[in-house]
Amino acid sequence: MSKGELTRQMILAKAAPIFNQRGYAGCSLQEILDATGLEKGGLYRHFANKEELAVESFRYALTNTVKIRTENLDHIRGAVARLRYIVQRFVDVRSAIPGGCPLMNTAIDADDGNPVLREMARKGMSDWRAGLCGIVEEGMRSGEIRATTEPRRIANTIIATLEGALMISRLEGNKCALEDAQATLEGVLKEIESD
Amino acid sequence: MSKGELTRQMILAKAAPIFNQRGYAGCSLQEILDATGLEKGGLYRHFANKEELAVESFRYALTNTVKIRTENLDHIRGAVARLRYIVQRFVDVRSAIPGGCPLMNTAIDADDGNPVLREMARKGMSDWRAGLCGIVEEGMRSGEIRATTEPRRIANTIIATLEGALMISRLEGNKCALEDAQATLEGVLKEIESD
Repeated sequence: MSKGELTRQMILAKAAPIFNQRGYAGCSLQEILDATGLEKGGLYRHFANKEELAVESFRYALTNTVKIRTENLDHIRGAVARLRYIVQRFVDVRSAIPGGCPLMNTAIDADDGNPVLREMARKGMSDWRAGLCGIVEEGMRSGEIRATTEPRRIANTIIATLEGALMISRLEGNKCALEDAQATLEGVLKEIESD
Repeated sequence: MSKGELTRQMILAKAAPIFNQRGYAGCSLQEILDATGLEKGGLYRHFANKEELAVESFRYALTNTVKIRTENLDHIRGAVARLRYIVQRFVDVRSAIPGGCPLMNTAIDADDGNPVLREMARKGMSDWRAGLCGIVEEGMRSGEIRATTEPRRIANTIIATLEGALMISRLEGNKCALEDAQATLEGVLKEIESD
């Protein structure tokens, strides 16, 4: 990595938690400068403006979040076991970036705001759902999952229940809601599993 | 209502959607002044500062949201029918205040920010769950709901799934995720219903 690229990565590593915790509009440039120890000119050598920095910080946060949530997923055999593992990782593993799930935060933050961030969040959501649908369909093909299962419904249910539970758990400062969500999703998975 | 109280209510009706859409930190005083047509002095005759206005706006938004979501609930007989009705209302009825669910928005917005708003969101969440738990327990007493049901798990599941689905639906601009959540929750309710 060139020195320029290293500085850029350092900026993203410092800026991503700030944007994730405070939101795009709620976060001031000064906070980023304080966190990175850079002057305005130094920051703008790497990013054209606050919007570009916000977009790249979100990309950084999302990439790291997906990575940590799907770690070792390739080693798990069986569609239901893979879905169960994804739920388990979401419940067990702390957010890769302080401030909770960047996808949910940006979805909420940008729903009435920044259109570029909103589009990236849409893409992130769509990719996540497509990944889950793919696993369900794989299980349907192999006969492990009932042929009558609706992949999109299962995928949306897993995402909605986990994200909603994370919101409650973070608000309340305990894991009850996440554990309750996991128990319910286990029931959903049992129900789509072939006898 | 006195003229002062009318003005106060007008301010809350105008400010609540702005805070709900833009968040506490993301919303500037100027936006509130523009929306209400008041001067700074006029606004501060009714609210001590931006924080008090944000707190009262959230209270206003939450009260109206709960009211619209539970309208006519008292007329529904049977615990499962009442839970089903609550899910249905959440899916069918647009938010009372533009910008989506004020409880989720404030939970996400305030999780790393304003402690007063955070406490109010906690209370709102706790009340909502207590209400749902009460209905489940009522059904368990009457024998309509299986005695082995865990009320808290059912309540957390309903809240998490609906709120998460609303987040996805608002991000994607369609009701798919909410309808999928409703279908899954219908399965959850069927499962706790006594034979």
